[in-house]
Amino acid sequence: MKTTDTQRKSSSGISDTQKEILPEPTLRRLPWYLAYVSMLRWENVEYVSSTQISKELNVDASQIAKDLSFLNIKGKTRIGYEVSKLEHELQEFLGFKKKHNAFIVGIGSLGAALLADSGLHNYGLNIVAGFDINPSLTGTTISGVPIYHSNRLDELRPHLKAEIGIVTVPVEYAQTVVDQLVNSGIKAIWNFTPARLRVPSGIVIENTSIYAHLAVIYNRMVK
Amino acid sequence: MKTTDTQRKSSSGISDTQKEILPEPTLRRLPWYLAYVSMLRWENVEYVSSTQISKELNVDASQIAKDLSFLNIKGKTRIGYEVSKLEHELQEFLGFKKKHNAFIVGIGSLGAALLADSGLHNYGLNIVAGFDINPSLTGTTISGVPIYHSNRLDELRPHLKAEIGIVTVPVEYAQTVVDQLVNSGIKAIWNFTPARLRVPSGIVIENTSIYAHLAVIYNRMVK
Repeated sequence: MKTTDTQRKSSSGISDTQKEILPEPTLRRLPWYLAYVSMLRWENVEYVSSTQISKELNVDASQIAKDLSFLNIKGKTRIGYEVSKLEHELQEFLGFKKKHNAFIVGIGSLGAALLADSGLHNYGLNIVAGFDINPSLTGTTISGVPIYHSNRLDELRPHLKAEIGIVTVPVEYAQTVVDQLVNSGIKAIWNFTPARLRVPSGIVIENTSIYAHLAVIYNRMVK
Repeated sequence: MKTTDTQRKSSSGISDTQKEILPEPTLRRLPWYLAYVSMLRWENVEYVSSTQISKELNVDASQIAKDLSFLNIKGKTRIGYEVSKLEHELQEFLGFKKKHNAFIVGIGSLGAALLADSGLHNYGLNIVAGFDINPSLTGTTISGVPIYHSNRLDELRPHLKAEIGIVTVPVEYAQTVVDQLVNSGIKAIWNFTPARLRVPSGIVIENTSIYAHLAVIYNRMVK
């Protein structure tokens, strides 16, 4: 399918409407397709069919076609999808090509680790500032990101245009920090603590409980 | 309930049997309870009831009682569970009090970040070695952990008694690395890449797709 700028804009419009009703399982599968398609591009493969993706990822081929119908791309009969175009459209659709400004609160070992992970940057996450209550961290930078005292969050949020708040504080402080982030005008919380957090409706919350994943591994390893 | 060493051993025996049939949702909820209970202990609270946990975490109280029945602990009528004992039992049950030796393959930014995260250590993960194909990393240490060339994985696995393989390589190499880890005798794979990986039956695999979580945040933020 040839795509002009105008067409892209209009299909993007349709796409935005569809995004609202994009089912969560589809959203979780799309990054798998992206990972596979990136690998194919890396191997200089030009076309891929949903049947091929299906075999590789163990997802029903008709499901894949349905998932990809949310994107601004059409497969060709018997040839399938153009690999580089599919990769591009997936990256666009998933928001990895845009910059999303974020704050990170809690510069302990995990917080500092995430600051150092340039991978996040490749997926569109732009951490503009870190915050901690430890005064000895104030004024320092980690991986080029300035660290401020947590009490400056409110003042700096609009200025630095941060929309995502990453929470890596000790679990005891998690809810307080989330309340502070929400009050400052943040739109989404990425929670790395094991706490269940309360946010007002309209605020996105995503939990990445890496320690809970460890518990699953340990438990499943027990023979 | 008073607990002697002998009793603990025998209840542990029962517990091990139950572990085999422990439902995944229970296993995912237990770390939430632990996080909450740790916070209560930190606040010097002595007792907690399932009703209280229920209110805080928005999980049905009868479900909580059922989940906690897998543990070696009984609540007292009208008083509830002893906080410090419940915390201890949850940590024990989830395997956070034992040392689990692990290899990490792929010392890019995420791999190095995980090596630097002392939090993992507090949850029982003992990373004993890192591996990378980059010869300039060979012989170095990161956060005290020695880095070896990936071709020494097979030789060092039994020697270092690693049971968990953490995969933080670029997605293109993920399956190759997993095959190598499995061949070396590793029992569980903790996959941080977005790839869907194939492992033989009997090998535990747990996916932590942090970039997929980002996609969910970005998508949900779109108004």
